[in-house]
Amino acid sequence: MNKPIIGLDIGGTAIKGALFAEFGEIVARNEIATPHDSGQEFFIDSLCDFVRGLVDGQAVDAVGLGIAGILDPECTTLIESPNMPVLRGMPLKAHLEQRLHCPVIIENDANAAALGELQAGAGRGHANFLFFTLGTGIGSGLILNSRLWRGEQGRAGEFGHLTVYPEGALCGCGKRGCLEAHSSGTAIVRMAVEAMRQHSDTELRCHADTPSALTPEIVYQLARAGDAVCRDIFKSMARGLAIAIADVHNLLDMYTFIVGGGISRAYDYFSPMVMDDIDQRVFSSARGRLRLLRAELGNDAGVYGAYYAAREALARL
Amino acid sequence: MNKPIIGLDIGGTAIKGALFAEFGEIVARNEIATPHDSGQEFFIDSLCDFVRGLVDGQAVDAVGLGIAGILDPECTTLIESPNMPVLRGMPLKAHLEQRLHCPVIIENDANAAALGELQAGAGRGHANFLFFTLGTGIGSGLILNSRLWRGEQGRAGEFGHLTVYPEGALCGCGKRGCLEAHSSGTAIVRMAVEAMRQHSDTELRCHADTPSALTPEIVYQLARAGDAVCRDIFKSMARGLAIAIADVHNLLDMYTFIVGGGISRAYDYFSPMVMDDIDQRVFSSARGRLRLLRAELGNDAGVYGAYYAAREALARL
Repeated sequence: MNKPIIGLDIGGTAIKGALFAEFGEIVARNEIATPHDSGQEFFIDSLCDFVRGLVDGQAVDAVGLGIAGILDPECTTLIESPNMPVLRGMPLKAHLEQRLHCPVIIENDANAAALGELQAGAGRGHANFLFFTLGTGIGSGLILNSRLWRGEQGRAGEFGHLTVYPEGALCGCGKRGCLEAHSSGTAIVRMAVEAMRQHSDTELRCHADTPSALTPEIVYQLARAGDAVCRDIFKSMARGLAIAIADVHNLLDMYTFIVGGGISRAYDYFSPMVMDDIDQRVFSSARGRLRLLRAELGNDAGVYGAYYAAREALARL
Repeated sequence: MNKPIIGLDIGGTAIKGALFAEFGEIVARNEIATPHDSGQEFFIDSLCDFVRGLVDGQAVDAVGLGIAGILDPECTTLIESPNMPVLRGMPLKAHLEQRLHCPVIIENDANAAALGELQAGAGRGHANFLFFTLGTGIGSGLILNSRLWRGEQGRAGEFGHLTVYPEGALCGCGKRGCLEAHSSGTAIVRMAVEAMRQHSDTELRCHADTPSALTPEIVYQLARAGDAVCRDIFKSMARGLAIAIADVHNLLDMYTFIVGGGISRAYDYFSPMVMDDIDQRVFSSARGRLRLLRAELGNDAGVYGAYYAAREALARL
């Protein structure tokens, strides 16, 4: 009989964890604030204490850990991490295995979530799909032939940095016109701030004194309530997605796309816009055949993904 | 001992064929004009006669056949074919196998050429690469994990129809801003015709009375001779390629790109432009690490590709 597996979701705000029993059911869960500011040693101590609390004295087969950022090709060390500078460059896998006395599998969070959707979410039954998160940024994980495609250096899935408008908005990565600069939550807010200055006929102007308090949620609610300017912001966001999705389809001849992340709460609103636009960007024989599905694992995507990443790695051992 | 294999390259102008001995060496070759206008039966008759001439009474293991267009997922029938309407919808594989009494393997020409480059050309030693042809249009074949990636319906590799400028030039496929509409031979000529009307300081104006005689070769020779307008046309063509190549890199984390087709004769001239532009479109950690190689199989790419497609298919049987 297999022992339980721990799935950990290391986020910028919180660390979430769950103990998974043999058939993938969660039998315990917990959450702590991410200890950012007290150095590497304290971070590792806190993380190990957190895991021991979840394990509660049982033996486990592995700990899976999903984290934002770029890992080395062997998934042992975080090379680049926007939210977690404290861990950068540390041999995280070795440190944790030494302390926890079990295999520790580290995976990029979007890759992990893609594995979670493949095994237990909207990706079941789909051998090929691109999972992407729409949030502050845009991350993604690519499943080909029912396996995670990691690429040559483990950095595959920079869907958010496909160029959709070569002369477009400046992206956080330094180049212009990335999908992330046109279709992320950050992009929605930027377009809203620009629009409230340019248009008099939008409810966005109620926020003119506090533009920093604008959120994608506010823009979405106004769009749904009929604000044409906010609707156009979502149309523009959808257009970027359609260009990038059609590109992936045209290159790889794949048909299934799964969207997660905070902004996927507006899925019912924006997905018809995306699909309409996609049909103008693919060959006639593919029209109506692409699918944009909503991720199913929601708030638990992180811990599920980490769990399935660990299971996949154990199966490869 | 393996018997010889025939490789056929069915082009819009000519049918080329070669007889390959056991270690992939060409021991006989021939060429005929493509019989376009006398119907399906005559086409098949001519093709079978051509093959029998090459075979010259020997037993062969298979006939490989590379052809432009979209095949059905099982590679038995040509569904769409710009150059070969006479074959459209015909169960080509079944017809030929019945007549030739050996396995016939049909493959899209760009896919076949990618397999050729993998086995015997610039792709040797590269497990992952995108091969693309720069000619009148832009075709491509994608190699992942040393195998051809065909996609779910066998239509993968529409690299030429990645969107590089959403508001850009109208493409033959009906959408705007495809790579093919900005970086193919057709695009180079279109830009040259536009430029000769807009600029007085270009040698292109010598061709103002006969714009239909303009070729990518003429634009290339003028660019090399220092014509700034023609150089800018190549820069624009290179920019489109860089956007599309960077997109493929960002999505798949792959580093090797191989260019063939007629315009690859200008490889030495345009490839530094492409590489400079790519470095502005990838993450800093990838800068200087991508490779744009020139295809090595040249005029023989078609027959080599068909041969290697047949070998690959026999190995799968």
